[in-house]
Amino acid sequence: MRVKGKQYRTIWPDADDPRIIHIIDQRLLPHCFEIEKLTNINNFITAIADMHVRGAGLIGAAAGFAVYSILLDSKKEWKKNLEYQCRRLIKARPTATNLAWAVKRQLAGLSEITDLYQARETSFKTAIAIADEDAECCRMIGEHGSAIIEELSRKKAGDTVNILTHCNAGWLAFVDYGSATAPIYAAAARGIKVKVWVDETRPWLQGSRLTAWELSQEGIAHEIVADNTGGHLMQHRMVDMVIVGTDRTTRRGDVANKIGTYLKALAAKDNEIPFYVALPSSTFDWDISDGIRYIPIEEISADEILYIKINDADGRTIRERIAPENSKAKNYGFDVTPARLVSGLITERGVCGANETDIIRLFPEKRV
Amino acid sequence: MRVKGKQYRTIWPDADDPRIIHIIDQRLLPHCFEIEKLTNINNFITAIADMHVRGAGLIGAAAGFAVYSILLDSKKEWKKNLEYQCRRLIKARPTATNLAWAVKRQLAGLSEITDLYQARETSFKTAIAIADEDAECCRMIGEHGSAIIEELSRKKAGDTVNILTHCNAGWLAFVDYGSATAPIYAAAARGIKVKVWVDETRPWLQGSRLTAWELSQEGIAHEIVADNTGGHLMQHRMVDMVIVGTDRTTRRGDVANKIGTYLKALAAKDNEIPFYVALPSSTFDWDISDGIRYIPIEEISADEILYIKINDADGRTIRERIAPENSKAKNYGFDVTPARLVSGLITERGVCGANETDIIRLFPEKRV
Repeated sequence: MRVKGKQYRTIWPDADDPRIIHIIDQRLLPHCFEIEKLTNINNFITAIADMHVRGAGLIGAAAGFAVYSILLDSKKEWKKNLEYQCRRLIKARPTATNLAWAVKRQLAGLSEITDLYQARETSFKTAIAIADEDAECCRMIGEHGSAIIEELSRKKAGDTVNILTHCNAGWLAFVDYGSATAPIYAAAARGIKVKVWVDETRPWLQGSRLTAWELSQEGIAHEIVADNTGGHLMQHRMVDMVIVGTDRTTRRGDVANKIGTYLKALAAKDNEIPFYVALPSSTFDWDISDGIRYIPIEEISADEILYIKINDADGRTIRERIAPENSKAKNYGFDVTPARLVSGLITERGVCGANETDIIRLFPEKRV
Repeated sequence: MRVKGKQYRTIWPDADDPRIIHIIDQRLLPHCFEIEKLTNINNFITAIADMHVRGAGLIGAAAGFAVYSILLDSKKEWKKNLEYQCRRLIKARPTATNLAWAVKRQLAGLSEITDLYQARETSFKTAIAIADEDAECCRMIGEHGSAIIEELSRKKAGDTVNILTHCNAGWLAFVDYGSATAPIYAAAARGIKVKVWVDETRPWLQGSRLTAWELSQEGIAHEIVADNTGGHLMQHRMVDMVIVGTDRTTRRGDVANKIGTYLKALAAKDNEIPFYVALPSSTFDWDISDGIRYIPIEEISADEILYIKINDADGRTIRERIAPENSKAKNYGFDVTPARLVSGLITERGVCGANETDIIRLFPEKRV
């Protein structure tokens, strides 16, 4: 996607020296656009653990390149080192399923190889494939999802389609396009008038920091609102549809996404506004049906609520307590939106209802 | 209520010189507890306009004392000056109905009086009456509301009753006790185990700054959560009831309260958790039934969303942009929760259903 008019992905090997992997240090957005070079496994682990990179798709792609980087620094007994470093890598963000998945895919591809040079070559190809597939997946989500926006635009006789989104399921969370944003970008590219309501997404402010930044770089009309606002907007028909991403989707279509998503789904239902979830099928957890019961919800440091931490335009970090000295806080990362509140799932294979029958029709290989 | 173990109201005349009116400068909370002295009408206008004081009840009480203060500084042609200054006073916060109401009440009480000294005496008495009635109203809300909490406590065999609240409808918004908090304080005083989930309430953070501070001063167990969290807490039975305040209540029980209230009401309904609104009956707007259609929703400066503004422990104000340079924001102050989502209204006269029949049964003088 575009940054200052130039095309970027969120991760890419250096054109001259592919042993150097470039990422965008997302902690510094929206005020500083800084490209970081990753050249060894410790760089990758720091980047993943400290959230220089974030989002399911991008973490998976970063893990792919991380394995290649391990092999670049391996010498004799490289298989042993690979195994050891991959264990460290997975621990960098234990709940990120795409991280473990990408490492597993790399290791499977290397299992028969004994020659280090061949291993390096294979792992580089796999890393590129993981990244390309992620981007292609999101591009297809854009294709399928933009048809829904186009239909709404027709119903409004070409008037602006107002779309609300929560958190950042944008291209910064993937290798390109994003999931929830892909249909928006695709629709805008086709000349459909769209405007995006960006939930600021407390406590980390992914909406203000990342989604608003992406949209402004792409020139998409948008306004940021406090997370509290969506219900009011929907009551007054200022929202035509909601599109969000998902971190984990059950086989019947329950959706675990950033905390607060469930509240927007309730408001959409109450006001008969379509509520869509966009996802690459890799986020399906085919073993679970009841998401509220069986998806564990991560607790994050309460400091995100008790303190405001911001990077100013000079890159300095400011941290101030906003709560009383003696007050505590609780910080749940995600909530689960039950399938009954979801109008449809936008996947790389097409759009389907949020129920097992429809999902399995699109993914027949997952029939049990 | 208690601050550092000492009893306070939010507004009171000086014990030695009642011409001096004391308030708490709420802008500096939770880090600094600073008492401000108001001695002339300009002090009062600044305090009301710049939100040193806030909340329906407290603004009304402040307006009462402001009129007294006008008369203290009036000499010849005092009626003319009174009229002129009252017009300025009302403009300090044009949407605060209690402000206009208190001024009107003062002026009505003074209409027959020609002697300035008698006018001063009368207006002081009226100001005290407005403040005392506000406190008494909230105390009664506490009495009626704590019965609901007691009942929940019984059902849980004495286990902690978990109560979620949004924004600050606490004693800081009134003269004493608060509306939404009064039942909590009354229940706690009776030895009932309660714990409060405090919505931080973006963008101004009334929850973190004010409600959490009040609760911690009173020694009530509480935890702050991002506004996004309530749905998840309710899904997992971590909330037994919701109590919020209201800025304006229609005759059928629709409720305009801080933006985001509607989302919590939806989550409570979806999880069959009682959702109560506590209010002095002065917040009823008896002329309106359909709140979503007829209550205009104030737009506030978008800067509250685009910038973080905090007072640090030294009282310095820090303001940092959290959104991209070119992004805009929209900041609606309130939303309307339709009566169908409200389990009951807790008023100074008792608890009633959120429908015209029940409300009028409690306020028969408002039958049309």
